[in-house]
Amino acid sequence: MVILVLNCGSSSIKYQLIDMISDKSSNLLAKGMVERIGLNDGILAHKPNGKDKFEVTKSIPDHTIGINMILEALVDKDHGVIGSLTDISAVGHRVAHGGEFFTESVLITDKVKEEIEKCIELAPLHNPANLKGVLSMENLLPGVSQVAVFDTSFHQSMPPHSYLYAIPYKFYEKYKVRRYGFHGTSHKFVAQKACKLVDIDFDNSKIITCHLGNGASITAIQNGKSLDTSMGFTPVDGLIMGTRSGTVDPGVLLYLADKENLNLKGVNDLINKQSGVQGISGISSDMRDIECAAANGNERAILALDMYYYRVTKFIGAYAAVMGGVDLIVFTGGIGENDPVLREKVSTMFAFMGVDFDAEANKGVRGKDKLLTKPNSRVKVMAITTDEELVIATDTRSIVSKLK
Amino acid sequence: MVILVLNCGSSSIKYQLIDMISDKSSNLLAKGMVERIGLNDGILAHKPNGKDKFEVTKSIPDHTIGINMILEALVDKDHGVIGSLTDISAVGHRVAHGGEFFTESVLITDKVKEEIEKCIELAPLHNPANLKGVLSMENLLPGVSQVAVFDTSFHQSMPPHSYLYAIPYKFYEKYKVRRYGFHGTSHKFVAQKACKLVDIDFDNSKIITCHLGNGASITAIQNGKSLDTSMGFTPVDGLIMGTRSGTVDPGVLLYLADKENLNLKGVNDLINKQSGVQGISGISSDMRDIECAAANGNERAILALDMYYYRVTKFIGAYAAVMGGVDLIVFTGGIGENDPVLREKVSTMFAFMGVDFDAEANKGVRGKDKLLTKPNSRVKVMAITTDEELVIATDTRSIVSKLK
Repeated sequence: MVILVLNCGSSSIKYQLIDMISDKSSNLLAKGMVERIGLNDGILAHKPNGKDKFEVTKSIPDHTIGINMILEALVDKDHGVIGSLTDISAVGHRVAHGGEFFTESVLITDKVKEEIEKCIELAPLHNPANLKGVLSMENLLPGVSQVAVFDTSFHQSMPPHSYLYAIPYKFYEKYKVRRYGFHGTSHKFVAQKACKLVDIDFDNSKIITCHLGNGASITAIQNGKSLDTSMGFTPVDGLIMGTRSGTVDPGVLLYLADKENLNLKGVNDLINKQSGVQGISGISSDMRDIECAAANGNERAILALDMYYYRVTKFIGAYAAVMGGVDLIVFTGGIGENDPVLREKVSTMFAFMGVDFDAEANKGVRGKDKLLTKPNSRVKVMAITTDEELVIATDTRSIVSKLK
Repeated sequence: MVILVLNCGSSSIKYQLIDMISDKSSNLLAKGMVERIGLNDGILAHKPNGKDKFEVTKSIPDHTIGINMILEALVDKDHGVIGSLTDISAVGHRVAHGGEFFTESVLITDKVKEEIEKCIELAPLHNPANLKGVLSMENLLPGVSQVAVFDTSFHQSMPPHSYLYAIPYKFYEKYKVRRYGFHGTSHKFVAQKACKLVDIDFDNSKIITCHLGNGASITAIQNGKSLDTSMGFTPVDGLIMGTRSGTVDPGVLLYLADKENLNLKGVNDLINKQSGVQGISGISSDMRDIECAAANGNERAILALDMYYYRVTKFIGAYAAVMGGVDLIVFTGGIGENDPVLREKVSTMFAFMGVDFDAEANKGVRGKDKLLTKPNSRVKVMAITTDEELVIATDTRSIVSKLK
């Protein structure tokens, strides 16, 4: 079953065409990205599997035109990978926010579209773009089933004492202000993959997954369900990220808004775009740059790394506590998969909980699935590669298969 | 050595007169409080040890007049406890904020007064009142040594990766925005008292102290030094409190400011005065009321308690992680000392770390120092009564003794 996976942003569309041979076997046919939608110099970068990458630069006024370019590329006689658009059996969409409506991936119906629209208030940048992608596909491939896979749905299992903030309860009732969490697709995927690799029962275990990329979040997964996660009502909460502050004393924001005469947008930009390792180091939002500078003795870069490790350590400790222990800690995402130093610095703090870290096994591990603890370690630590597109394709296949 | 301990607020003054017989033995001579300074119906409530409490109601226009009333009460022929004001050897002041100037208690000099004044920016409500108390005493008891004991100084040992926020570094340089922490006097006192009682070496141990009162904070004390603490730049950060939110996704504040059209004062009031267990439960800011309502099945009260326990658990877990383990967990403050249910709910979550909680020993323990774990528990848990005034008197005695 050939599935087109779409991740529509406000001015970009990432895509993958995946042949889902079974629920365990798949074949990536092509992937690519449309950028600069709405500008005169839009770009399509298309990479068919086994063939050269190719690019088209032209005006891409809207999402429908952008997606149409993707479809044309997929069936192009030179760069294409399928003979006809009718080969596409279903489309899977990444949808940023499912609010409290969605606890799992769903077939897109009129009601689902309405509910995604109701969540625009909660994800004003992402959900409108996701919806545009859905509507464009309806025009371009009428009759083809579409599935929505939400960043938030895995975390809908959190209990109220975990997802509520200690602010007046009426704000939950009035605006649904609560912790939602994001990266749910990735947290669930890497936890399940890790469990299979080391023979842990996903539904009867305590797992902490650290998705550390440019955005970053940690999740406590108890008996297969998300119990808590570090991103909250918005993706700025929790860990230190590339340019996001993560958790900050709320009093600090009020103080700075006053001193620096910032309005809401000013504070929002401050914590989302000027903070994180970028803000501390003054060097870069990219951890590789920070590590390079730290290796050369830059004090602010060393500080940024120390703060980053420290914050991750605190969250793992907190989540082990609320689960009454932990069986498995997983590192994933661009940083989690590729940064042996971070994994060692953090993991070795948990020797007291039964982590017997294998520094040799960890050395040089980048972009691979690997167990990083010694055979008798009471708590296991793993590096696991994530693949959100594959989850979307898998869920889409599963839902569409049941229709038949 | 008779020492007057003063805790001056913006419209109140708490005091104790303590005879410090030695650094280990003391005798409380009198205690009391002046309230409603600046109003026509000011009150002095004075309780001499061994005699009846007595009250005076009259206009108390300023701190000097308020303190003078205290001094008159102390030498009053009916209600007094000393023969003459010359019996007072020194005055110890609680000072809210010492910024980065003070790492320990100090004799008050002109330079110290200047530095306390420089910290007004960081504690605009408290430091001015503390300074007024100092200046009033200079007028009323000229020549008597005064000592400042800071809420923040114990936490000055925190390393930068613990005390900095992941916001642009320039705000630390420009405004000294960082985590300071509060309740330092209490955290240090109860940790040291607990260590003596169970024969742990304070300077070579990992201790987590939970000061849970109407305000609440948790501190990680490693080898006798504060490594981290949950209150931050302001006392709103960290745990859930009576009316304070503690940690909240910063994005939530921006969202609510926008939706509810709140200015900075509005947001400040929201997180400081309308949140916490009051905000969640809609019942009360007092944990005793919440527990009573929860016992009667009130769902929002039960939720508030669950959230309170959960947040405390997360912080203990985080602090155990950054210390690489914990030897001793201490509960203190109005709630920590008097709430066996909270202590049991939280402590039993740490069985996996080696807490063997003694539920029997914990039962009914209120306002007492007691070990709450079984003899062989790897991690000890204790209830310890705090006494910030005694710390102030002890520090004052120690500093003044060295002058002679």
